[in-house]
Amino acid sequence: EFPGVRILEGTAGLTEVACLPEVHTVVSAVVGTAGLAPTLAALQARKHVALASKELLVLAGKFVTAAARAAGTTLLPVDSEHNAIHQLLRGKDRTEIARLVLTASGGAFRDTPLAELARVTVAQALQHPNWNMGPKVTIDSATMANKGLEVIEARWLFDLPESRIDVVVHPQSIIHSLVTLSDGSLQAQLSPPHMAYPIQDCLLFPQRLPCPAPQLNLAEALALTMSPPDPARYPCLGLARAAAAAGGTAPAIFNAANEVAVEAFLAGRIAFSGIWRTVEEVFEQIPHTSHPDLAAILTADADARQLAKSLTD
Amino acid sequence: EFPGVRILEGTAGLTEVACLPEVHTVVSAVVGTAGLAPTLAALQARKHVALASKELLVLAGKFVTAAARAAGTTLLPVDSEHNAIHQLLRGKDRTEIARLVLTASGGAFRDTPLAELARVTVAQALQHPNWNMGPKVTIDSATMANKGLEVIEARWLFDLPESRIDVVVHPQSIIHSLVTLSDGSLQAQLSPPHMAYPIQDCLLFPQRLPCPAPQLNLAEALALTMSPPDPARYPCLGLARAAAAAGGTAPAIFNAANEVAVEAFLAGRIAFSGIWRTVEEVFEQIPHTSHPDLAAILTADADARQLAKSLTD
Repeated sequence: EFPGVRILEGTAGLTEVACLPEVHTVVSAVVGTAGLAPTLAALQARKHVALASKELLVLAGKFVTAAARAAGTTLLPVDSEHNAIHQLLRGKDRTEIARLVLTASGGAFRDTPLAELARVTVAQALQHPNWNMGPKVTIDSATMANKGLEVIEARWLFDLPESRIDVVVHPQSIIHSLVTLSDGSLQAQLSPPHMAYPIQDCLLFPQRLPCPAPQLNLAEALALTMSPPDPARYPCLGLARAAAAAGGTAPAIFNAANEVAVEAFLAGRIAFSGIWRTVEEVFEQIPHTSHPDLAAILTADADARQLAKSLTD
Repeated sequence: EFPGVRILEGTAGLTEVACLPEVHTVVSAVVGTAGLAPTLAALQARKHVALASKELLVLAGKFVTAAARAAGTTLLPVDSEHNAIHQLLRGKDRTEIARLVLTASGGAFRDTPLAELARVTVAQALQHPNWNMGPKVTIDSATMANKGLEVIEARWLFDLPESRIDVVVHPQSIIHSLVTLSDGSLQAQLSPPHMAYPIQDCLLFPQRLPCPAPQLNLAEALALTMSPPDPARYPCLGLARAAAAAGGTAPAIFNAANEVAVEAFLAGRIAFSGIWRTVEEVFEQIPHTSHPDLAAILTADADARQLAKSLTD
């Protein structure tokens, strides 16, 4: 033991650190739902909270955003797409916003013939064109489950229904997202695909200082394309949209089933197309409820995991 | 004569109408410098002024923006590029803005082999790819004199030096302009090329309502390209930048010489390449002054016109 050093651990330790009086900004980046209680405590203590965890918004978006609203504090998204939208919405009135447009790289199989999708290998699926991420997110990018989860996150972060959140395939990952304003015009946020931009924004907000990452070079030719995602190529996106629209326990069920299915694919137990078949089956079999409390959401999550495991073992 | 109807005319009439107490927004769209006095009067009367005239900013930008600042009123640009930048700057702090990026269609000869530029005809020069405009602006678009004038306008409207205003060729005319923020990220404003968007923005500001013009259709594939303008293809852009950087009477001299040269080209008296040769010659021969009053600017304008006419007759 070192004099003056205290070792903290678990939920109580995270909560204590997150609420220290000298803390201005808390970056919530714990995988899974273990970060939920400390994050809610940080919001109640009026800290700026930068959210790097998907689960907190997908499972408990209603509770997290309600806590931020009640405390009148700022919830900042670290994800490049949501951070882009947050930046674009600053200084605008809510009535000016018609729709949000999330961009998606299209993942590893954007140009693979549809007939070959069922047979792709794990190694092929782990080749992401633009971002260097962990295996789970890279597979989710190839199925667009990731973009589906982002639709659910955006629904809570920006308090807009799923029907007003568009997704476009933008293979260059330079436009990080757009907003459609109420006159019909759009605004877009652009930078090279580098997480230094959104992370720095979260840490410095509302200040803006030069970012050390490479910048777009306007002295070179640049081509930016956007196209609608093909529902046949990305069935997980449609399933996630259905979960977002249903609300309640549905997003937790989608997320849990997808997580288990991706594990099974990475372990070689199911085919790539088995991912969305599993999610669809779990989503159909586990009953949804519309106004669950947190305990009911965690139960739905556990039930979905158990069923997905039995389907993929 | 009709009872209750008064006919007003000239500078006094325009000024009276622009300053009526029930007027909220004045659209200043008089060609040339005849709109200057009424526009300054409207600003002093604290009207919102929407500027559709290039000349007022190119010749008298210093005086027009000073009048708006002194009265604490809003000067809104109708031009799609400047309107886009104005929209992007709303709600942002000045310290967040690093650079402005004006987009240019590249005009009728964007893809014409350089060696053929000297021989192009008036009919060819009047084919603008995206916008339906008058002959003068269409020719200015082909030479990029138009974009050069817009650099000068932006310099005054947004109070940034010419060295912080970029120009990129964007043939689709969907991104109307961008701003580079101090962290190195960019924001862009997009809509189909239709003047209803910026005009409506000027008339409704700060409100935003649905615009009846066609919207971007995200269900269709979209390709947006940007590339640096070739100085050999667009010599007028470099000349206008030199005028913007010199300030004083230089922008007025550039504008006057260009106007006369374009007239001479449209009348078939000089070749297309004669436009920038004339502007260059006038720009070199007429002495510039750095801190002119309005009278000195109008004298420089008249001198430049006279010399340009003698060179092109």
